[in-house]
Order: sequence, then structure tokens, then C-alpha cells
Amino acid sequence: QIFLKWDSPPQTVLFVTKPNSNSVHALCSEMVRWLKEHNNINIFVEPRVSKELLIEDSYFNFIQTWDNDEEMKTLHTKVDLIVTLGGDGTVLWAASLFKGPVPPVVAFSLGSLGFMTPFPSEQYRECLGNVLKRPFAITLRSRLQCHVIRDAAKDEVETGEPILVLNEVTIDRGMSSYLTYLECYCDSSFVTCVQGDGLIISTTSGSTAYSLAAGGSMVHPQVPGILFTPICPHSLSFRPLILPEYVTLRVQVPFNSRGQAWASFDGKGRIQLGPGDALICSVSPWPLPTACLVDSTTDFLRSIHEGLHWNLRKSQALDGPG
Amino acid sequence: QIFLKWDSPPQTVLFVTKPNSNSVHALCSEMVRWLKEHNNINIFVEPRVSKELLIEDSYFNFIQTWDNDEEMKTLHTKVDLIVTLGGDGTVLWAASLFKGPVPPVVAFSLGSLGFMTPFPSEQYRECLGNVLKRPFAITLRSRLQCHVIRDAAKDEVETGEPILVLNEVTIDRGMSSYLTYLECYCDSSFVTCVQGDGLIISTTSGSTAYSLAAGGSMVHPQVPGILFTPICPHSLSFRPLILPEYVTLRVQVPFNSRGQAWASFDGKGRIQLGPGDALICSVSPWPLPTACLVDSTTDFLRSIHEGLHWNLRKSQALDGPG
Amino acid sequence: QIFLKWDSPPQTVLFVTKPNSNSVHALCSEMVRWLKEHNNINIFVEPRVSKELLIEDSYFNFIQTWDNDEEMKTLHTKVDLIVTLGGDGTVLWAASLFKGPVPPVVAFSLGSLGFMTPFPSEQYRECLGNVLKRPFAITLRSRLQCHVIRDAAKDEVETGEPILVLNEVTIDRGMSSYLTYLECYCDSSFVTCVQGDGLIISTTSGSTAYSLAAGGSMVHPQVPGILFTPICPHSLSFRPLILPEYVTLRVQVPFNSRGQAWASFDGKGRIQLGPGDALICSVSPWPLPTACLVDSTTDFLRSIHEGLHWNLRKSQALDGPG
Amino acid sequence: QIFLKWDSPPQTVLFVTKPNSNSVHALCSEMVRWLKEHNNINIFVEPRVSKELLIEDSYFNFIQTWDNDEEMKTLHTKVDLIVTLGGDGTVLWAASLFKGPVPPVVAFSLGSLGFMTPFPSEQYRECLGNVLKRPFAITLRSRLQCHVIRDAAKDEVETGEPILVLNEVTIDRGMSSYLTYLECYCDSSFVTCVQGDGLIISTTSGSTAYSLAAGGSMVHPQVPGILFTPICPHSLSFRPLILPEYVTLRVQVPFNSRGQAWASFDGKGRIQLGPGDALICSVSPWPLPTACLVDSTTDFLRSIHEGLHWNLRKSQALDGPG
Repeated sequence: QIFLKWDSPPQTVLFVTKPNSNSVHALCSEMVRWLKEHNNINIFVEPRVSKELLIEDSYFNFIQTWDNDEEMKTLHTKVDLIVTLGGDGTVLWAASLFKGPVPPVVAFSLGSLGFMTPFPSEQYRECLGNVLKRPFAITLRSRLQCHVIRDAAKDEVETGEPILVLNEVTIDRGMSSYLTYLECYCDSSFVTCVQGDGLIISTTSGSTAYSLAAGGSMVHPQVPGILFTPICPHSLSFRPLILPEYVTLRVQVPFNSRGQAWASFDGKGRIQLGPGDALICSVSPWPLPTACLVDSTTDFLRSIHEGLHWNLRKSQALDGPG
Repeated sequence: QIFLKWDSPPQTVLFVTKPNSNSVHALCSEMVRWLKEHNNINIFVEPRVSKELLIEDSYFNFIQTWDNDEEMKTLHTKVDLIVTLGGDGTVLWAASLFKGPVPPVVAFSLGSLGFMTPFPSEQYRECLGNVLKRPFAITLRSRLQCHVIRDAAKDEVETGEPILVLNEVTIDRGMSSYLTYLECYCDSSFVTCVQGDGLIISTTSGSTAYSLAAGGSMVHPQVPGILFTPICPHSLSFRPLILPEYVTLRVQVPFNSRGQAWASFDGKGRIQLGPGDALICSVSPWPLPTACLVDSTTDFLRSIHEGLHWNLRKSQALDGPG
Repeated sequence: QIFLKWDSPPQTVLFVTKPNSNSVHALCSEMVRWLKEHNNINIFVEPRVSKELLIEDSYFNFIQTWDNDEEMKTLHTKVDLIVTLGGDGTVLWAASLFKGPVPPVVAFSLGSLGFMTPFPSEQYRECLGNVLKRPFAITLRSRLQCHVIRDAAKDEVETGEPILVLNEVTIDRGMSSYLTYLECYCDSSFVTCVQGDGLIISTTSGSTAYSLAAGGSMVHPQVPGILFTPICPHSLSFRPLILPEYVTLRVQVPFNSRGQAWASFDGKGRIQLGPGDALICSVSPWPLPTACLVDSTTDFLRSIHEGLHWNLRKSQALDGPG
Repeated sequence: QIFLKWDSPPQTVLFVTKPNSNSVHALCSEMVRWLKEHNNINIFVEPRVSKELLIEDSYFNFIQTWDNDEEMKTLHTKVDLIVTLGGDGTVLWAASLFKGPVPPVVAFSLGSLGFMTPFPSEQYRECLGNVLKRPFAITLRSRLQCHVIRDAAKDEVETGEPILVLNEVTIDRGMSSYLTYLECYCDSSFVTCVQGDGLIISTTSGSTAYSLAAGGSMVHPQVPGILFTPICPHSLSFRPLILPEYVTLRVQVPFNSRGQAWASFDGKGRIQLGPGDALICSVSPWPLPTACLVDSTTDFLRSIHEGLHWNLRKSQALDGPG
């Protein structure tokens, strides 16, 4: 179990919040006041939230935000801790704001527990107090960095920034009536062709999301591995595969492919892949540290019990002729 | 990818061979001569094989063996390299001879490829020549150490040596008509009750053995993790789970259990567990290094293609009204 | 939906009850009195229950039972209706008493609902009143008749009576460390070799029992079919198979089989099958009619909802960046 | 096993052929000549094929076709037998031409065997000779009839013709990032809500198509049942369900549904379903009779062996320490 210990007391907290929710907004406003007044913490929020708070009360003039993508890129140098209010989707969104190093995240759920949101928002004072002042257990969640390469044969490498995912990147057939036909390589070795509805390349954090619905195993987020899970594969002998974190995966749409293929990243940002295009995928050097309520294993087991009702079943009398 | 480099040239090789096979015996005899004559290597064999070779030809007088368990315990101080001739079962057997550190294994298959036997016996000169003289890629295979505790409530810890497994430890109901009812803990956290035919706790090397037949994922042997795979679970919502290598698992037979429970270790050595007994399981500090033919990933992918026919299917024309 | 209508009012009821349960015994005694006094019904019980009731109160002198197997074979000519008190196991037991035609069964559960016990015992007056006087919906449950043939090559047909199962016949490897290797035929066609822990041949009533745990589909009991479900098959491409009711299945242990094979019938009566032995299995001409609480489909869906918690999950907010 | 026997010799054959294939076209042309010249059979072809043949050779002037949908609707009164040349897709297409009764189909495969195309085209003379002159075994394949109802609450029943499928009707989420949320009813009973990628309602003929990729069992086409198979369900406890042929299924998109839902029929003809819309589905009174090469069971088993490589695996030595 990894613990995170502050070298110097944290000074700045970024709030990332689920939009369009009155209860989240009210809670955010309350927590910002509390952090400012009782802990003298500097506060960052997203531009949207900044506007909302300023309209509400000029009290919030001290809150900082950013104006453009360039400023956002330096956020990790200014922020010591991230607080998210919402569900797993809010944690995914918070992670997506950081293409490089990510400050630790304290994720509060409102209502039902998520897989990455162990903190109950009703007890935010106690929870945040602990995290601000003491060492705390974290789960270091790997992320995947993805590149789309157009016309891979020409080696026209897409030179842009990688797309980072915390759960999974998916390649599927969209609305096409043809199955996908994806050629997959692990480092220099041929893995398989995926013929079916598609393929999920997932982190272990994502093992309880789409990969699980497609038949993948549940993997503790601290296991270093990459899940390779087919979606409705045509081949009877296909089984989910788990690969080490040090490999690079390459998924290629063949030049003679009749069907379409669509990539999506943590369930968003669909990109069409044409014949000859490829997706390159490896573990990012910049994982996401999330604070634990108890410890990584206890939090994980609780989330699969409460979130998935995993194997919770009233014990049954199993009897002889009975 | 991990490489193993000799500090000084290896001097002693232990042969471990599949019994009751004329072709294995002939090959062993030939390889021993070749190693002795062309490489001046000292040879160890099991007592059974020593007798067989000496009956055959007094030439083999130079071969060493051991007389009792005490001598066997110091084998790792005398042997630089292990050569196995047989299948995966022979590798399992070789590993079981070493309760502590294990020298690297070069595993030759006769006939069909196994998951842990990548070397083709026809090319033994080239293969062994490379391994003896040059650095070589290895797969470092984790093992599980298991303790059975009788009447766990009394804390009467079984103080004996742990039982080491390379593939898996299984707890099943044997011939009982009652389902198992096993309470499982991970460190101090309750995991679940396993009600069904039983439970497999597997290494990643064992992920392609019994765990796979029970619905577990295939896991690259270099992924650090422990597979927790139920056998025919009664609960619909059960799914295989993969846990980090740093945890300790405890599987307990409840005091009011009506059924029997039987532990077996790499498919052997059945032990009955009564009400109140427990099995404790964690990763051994002494993994098994096995030499790779190409590298860990290529060897693994080849073994699931050839050994399991994983997702090998002639590509099919998938057509419109066609 | 099939309905059963009495030609003439039913006169005789057989009680089959779960043993070793005070609440079952008390309920049985109460229901017998009620049927006798309010409906003037003749009562049959098993010899064990007859003794228990007579010790309790000589009032029960009117109760009939049977003395030996010969008398039991004519039971279907004397009994118009069977009432079971217990769980699914009690219904299995009741069915096993009738090798030929079976009177309709009204199955009461005590406590939790079973797959075949839809009637709540608290409302027995209303339930039995309806069944005795009015047409009622039934589920006609197929049974399998099984023959074991010793040394099948010699055609030494086991001439004895078939063993009848309502749920399933299983062939497994017992405590053997070798996988089963079972050659399976459907009529004259080769189906497959089952290499693994074993094979389940199940009725559709049994589809929610062991077959489900082994990965079979849930099948409405009125679907005419036989489930062929492997237990932990070695082959990756194995999938459960469902065959029509008109076929005969033959499962043969090869002559060169190293492992053991054990047949069991509705979870009981283990028989060892040696090399060369075979199990022959087809649908019995004598199904089990069970009375429905509502109708066959409603009862079935209710049982998988309540008994298995099938797909009952609190609806979850699935949100965007949320 | 069902046999079909001619009351009077068949006089008219309809050819349905895979388009855009020279080998199919050449074979069709050859078979038409052979049927005309050696058996004096009248020939129908699709309008497209009629044009192709007439351009090729005015010899084909005797061939009949149809000019519009009205004429096509009476095809079953003019045609005694259908010959398909192509794969399973061609059989699906042929079936779709008949909304009511369907003449028996003799399905020839070119190259690899399909699930519904048992006849080898090289032996067409012998195969067709047998079918034209003798009784022959058939598989009677159920079809599903589907209605889409817009705004189901208003009971504005879509009064048009049903859409008939031979394999399956699918409801999926298309490109939406929201899971489907489909309320399902069987007759008047609530079955479940399907939250996931979607739902497949399949015939037993379709059990080896999309339903199998989604985890459904393989079902012999003569088993009377409807498969209810979820696609990547969110709930861990979901399992495929098989229902009797006599039920009517209703799948409803809730009024507050955020996601889209798309129905497709045998993989084609996508229709969007909005909030409040429903799909009604039951077994059609008009099945598809397909001629068997051997018999229904032998043909089915051969197709899953050859087409899916179902459980074909070289037998493996499973040995002790070996």
C-alpha cells in the first residue's frame, strides 16, 4: 500500500464538479468557503464554475481559474490537490485536464458510491482535514496514452499530443453492419485479429467499467497490467487477455477493410478510423493518484460489493432430500 | 524484458525428466554426454534417473544425485541451471524440488509445445549453447506459498514448511454432494463467500491452466498478480478477480460447514480441510526463472496460439445479401 | 399455457415432506387435518411420516402409506394429487418416487421461494381449495431417463429400470487428478469429446440449477430441449449446446481412459463408470406436471428474479462528464 | 426428424443468388440449363439475375421473373422449390422475399460451409435429383415477426406488415455514449431492464450468429424457442434466457430515455427507436423449410464443427509429473 506524505502543507486546491446539479453546486460553494476560512487554502475552479460562483456572490472573488488551454497546461504547477464532486465521470473528467503530472485527487461521491469516489460528501470536513494534514493512502491509477496514426503504411505519424484515458479506449464498428476486423500487435509480436463488435483496451481502473460488461475480469487497480478485451468476438475461442504495463499495443485497420471502425476514449470523443489507420497505445508515465478512504484493497472490494453487487447473495440452505 | 547474464560460466546442470518415456530417456542420455564432452559440465539427475543411467552404461559414473531430502535442500547451491525434458508437468515437478531459490530453467518440449516449455528438443545444441554462453531473456514466474491451518480459531498455526505451487492451489468439494462454502479474506478485508464447486487461487503462469477452464482471463506471466477464480459458482454475479502480488489470502471453511473441502496443489497432493480449517496463501519470495526462446511476450503469445488455438480462425467472408 | 381440468373431483392426496424439520412436520399435520375434515380427502404419506404422525396422535389412523417397493410402484393409480412441503429438493424427491406416470404436484415452499415451489405455505387453504375445485395452470416438466451400460462394446445392455432425473445427470471426475475424456454422441452423430471437469445433461427445469453455475443459459421449463453443458472444459471453443427432446444421447468412457468418471443423478446416487462404460440418456415419456401459482411464464420469471436475483440492479445514473 | 414428400412432382424452381460473384453467376447459368434440359423445370430468378442472363444469351428467354412488389407477393403460389447459391446471407435474403408461406429451400454453398447451406455445389446434379424425386429431410426454421410501435403509450399501432427475420432482431445503442435502457416484457410479465450495449432476440437458427458472439448458447434449430441475449449487459447477474415459442415479447424504450436505440433485422434495415417506441416480437406462423444434406442433427453438428471449429482440439496428453 502506497502512502503520500506532504513535504510542505498543501496550499491550493482545484475543484472539479459535475455540471447541472444544484446539490453539487451548493456543496462546492460550502466546501470552498470552509477550505478558505478554516484552512486558508487557495482555490481553483473550472471557468464555468467560476462564472457560476461569481454571479452568486462576490465573496468568491478570490477564486482563481484559467482563460485558455495554454494556462490550463500549467495547472499542475499551481495545484496541490484536486477535489472532485460527482461520480466516476467527474474523476475521468478531472484526469483529462492533466496531460502530464496529476496532483492527488480526493473524490467525493454524492449518493451512491463509485469505483473511484470513496469519500462520502457528508463527512467532507473530517475527510479533507485528514488529507490536508496527514499522510494518506493512495491508489496509483495507470493511464493509457493513445495515438491515432493515419495511413500507417506511410508512417505519417500523428505528431500531436497523445489522448490520455483513465478507463479505456474502445474501437468498435459503430452503425456498420460489417464486423470489425482489427489486426493487433504487442510490441513486435502479432497478437490476433479481432473480428466482432470491437475491442476494449482498458486500464485496471477500467476493469470494472465497459471491459467487465464485455466479459473481462475484475482487476484490482494496483495490479500493473493492460486489459485486452474483445466485444462480442466472432471466434468461439477468444478470451480476454491481460498484458504487462511495459508493452506497446498497435491496433490496425486493414487496407481492405470494408467496415468502419470508431475509436472512443473513456466513452467520449469518437474518431473514425479508415482503412490503413492505426491506434498506438501504451501506459502513460503520468498516473492518477487517488486518495483512499481506508486503503486501496478495502476501497476496491467495497466498490465492487456496493457498486456491482458482486457476489452478494443471501446464503441459501442447500439440503438433501429437502 | 528481463535478461539473465552469467557472472561466471555455469558449471553444473540438473536434469529433470518425464518418467516412463523411452524417447525422453534417450534424449536425456544424449544431452548429458554432449554437455559433458563438449562443455565439460557437471551433471545432476534425480535418484531414479541416476539408477537408470548407471544400469545402462557405466560411462555415467560421473553423474551426481542426492540420497535424501536434506541433501536435496542444498541443491540450489550446487546447480547453476536446470534442464527439463517433458511437458509443463515436468516444469511443475522441477519447481517443486526447490522450496527456496531456484536456478534458471531451460525447458525442452518433446512434441507439442507447452506453456512453459518453449525450446524444441531437436535443436538442443544450439539452444543450450546460447544459454550457457550468452545473456538470455527470462520469464520470472511467481509462485504461491500455501499454509494449511487446522482449527484456525485456535490459532494453531501449522508451523511446517509452506507448500509451493507454480500454477495454482485449488479448493473443491471432491465427491461431496454439498456445495463448498468458503469464506475468503484479502489481508484484513472480507472478499466473498465462494459457494459452488470450489475456488482456484492461481499464479499468472497458471492462468492458462485450470483457471482458464473455469472462466478466468489469460494473463501474461510477467504481470504481477494473483488470480481468484471460482469454479462453477452458485451466484450469478460472481466474476473472476485479480489481486496484487502483495496481498495475503485466507480461505476458511466455516465451523458449521456441512460439506467437505479438499485442497490440491498444482493438481496433486490432496488434503482434506475440515470445518474451522483455513488455507493461507501469498506470493513466494522465490520465483521460478524460465529461459525464453525469443522473449517473454513472443513465447507467451506463441504458446496460447499453438497450445490453445486461441482465436485462430480462418478469416471469413462476411458479406451483404451474400 | 397448459391447463389441467379434473374429470372427477380428486379424492386422494399424497404428502411428500422435507425430513428433520419441525415446522414442516407441524404444517403437514395441520394440512392433513384440514384436507380430511373440510374436503374429505384420503391421505397418503411416506412410511417415515406415517410413523411420525401415528406416534403423535392416533387421530391419524386413517392415513395410508406403503410397505415396500412393489406397493410404491402402484402409487400413481391411487393418488390424484401430490402436495410437497419443503424446497426444490422435496420436489426432486417426490418425482423420484414415480418411475412412470406422475400425478400433478402442488409444491409449497417454507420461507424462500424455489424454482419449482411457487405456493406460499401460509395460504395453503386458498391454494389447495383452488386446485381441488377448478382447472389450474401447470408446467409440464420433462424428465430424463438414464441407463448405464457396462462395457458398452460387448453390448451388454443394463436391462434394469432407467434412472429418472428431473434436473440433471452429471458425469464428473470425482477426486481424480486426470481430466475426464468423454465421447458424446447424439443419435448416430458424433458430438464432441468432453475433456474437463465433466458434463451436465440437464432438463430445462434443471437449467437454473447446476447447468447455470457451469455457464448454461436459463431456459423456460416449457421449452422442449435437453441442455448439454460442459463443466470447466479444457477447450476454449466449447459452448453449451441445447438439443431437441427427440434425441438420444450417449456418453462413453473410452477404453484407454486413465481417469475415473462418476455419474450422479439429481445430485445423488454416485455410480462409477469405468473404461468402456456408457451412459444413455433420453427424455422420459413421463413428465412431471407441477401446478402454477399464476402461470408457467410468470412463475418462472418470478423464480429467477427472487431465487437468483437475476438482473435485479438498482438503476444507475449514467452521466456524461458527471 | 421431419420429411417432406411431394404430392405431385415439382415444376418450378426459384433461384436466389449472391450478387457480384462470377463463380455464382456461372454456376447459376449451368444449373438453370441442367434443370430445364434434364428435368423440364420452369425457372424463376430475381429481376437483376434475369437481366444478366438475357444479356448473356437469348437462350434464357424462358426464364420468368417479377416486375413489382405486388407480383412478388404471389411468388409462393408459383414456385415449388427455392435454390440458393451463396452463403447464409443468401438464405436470409431468400427468406426475406416471402412474407407468408415459403417453399422449401435447397441451399448450396460455394467454398466454405454455412450454418444453413449444407449442399456442396459441385454435386448439384445428385443433390437436386434427390430432392426433386424423393422425400427429403428438412429443418423447419422458425422466423420472428416484428412490429415497431411509435409512441406505444398512445397505442398508435403500426398497422403495416410485420418485418420477418430468420436469424435475429437486434436493438442497440448505435453511436450513442449512453447505455441502452430497454424495458422488456414477456406476454404480460415484466422480464427485466436491459442496460448495456443492447439486446438480441434470436431464433434458434440465429443462435450460431450474433447471439453466440454475445454469449448465448448454441441451440439446435429444431428446438422450439426464442433466445433473449443481452449485448454487454451492465448487470453482472445477467444471463441469456430462452423462452418458449408461444410468447410475445415487447421491448420498450422508456419515455425518459436519454440514449438512442436502433433496431436492425437480420443485420440490416436500421430503424431508430425514440423514447416511448416499442418493438413487438413473436414467432411467425410461416417458418422456412430448408432441405437437409443428411438430417437436421447431423447437418447442425457438422456446421458447428466446420463453421465454428466448435470444440475441435487435438487431444492432449495430460500427464502426471510429466
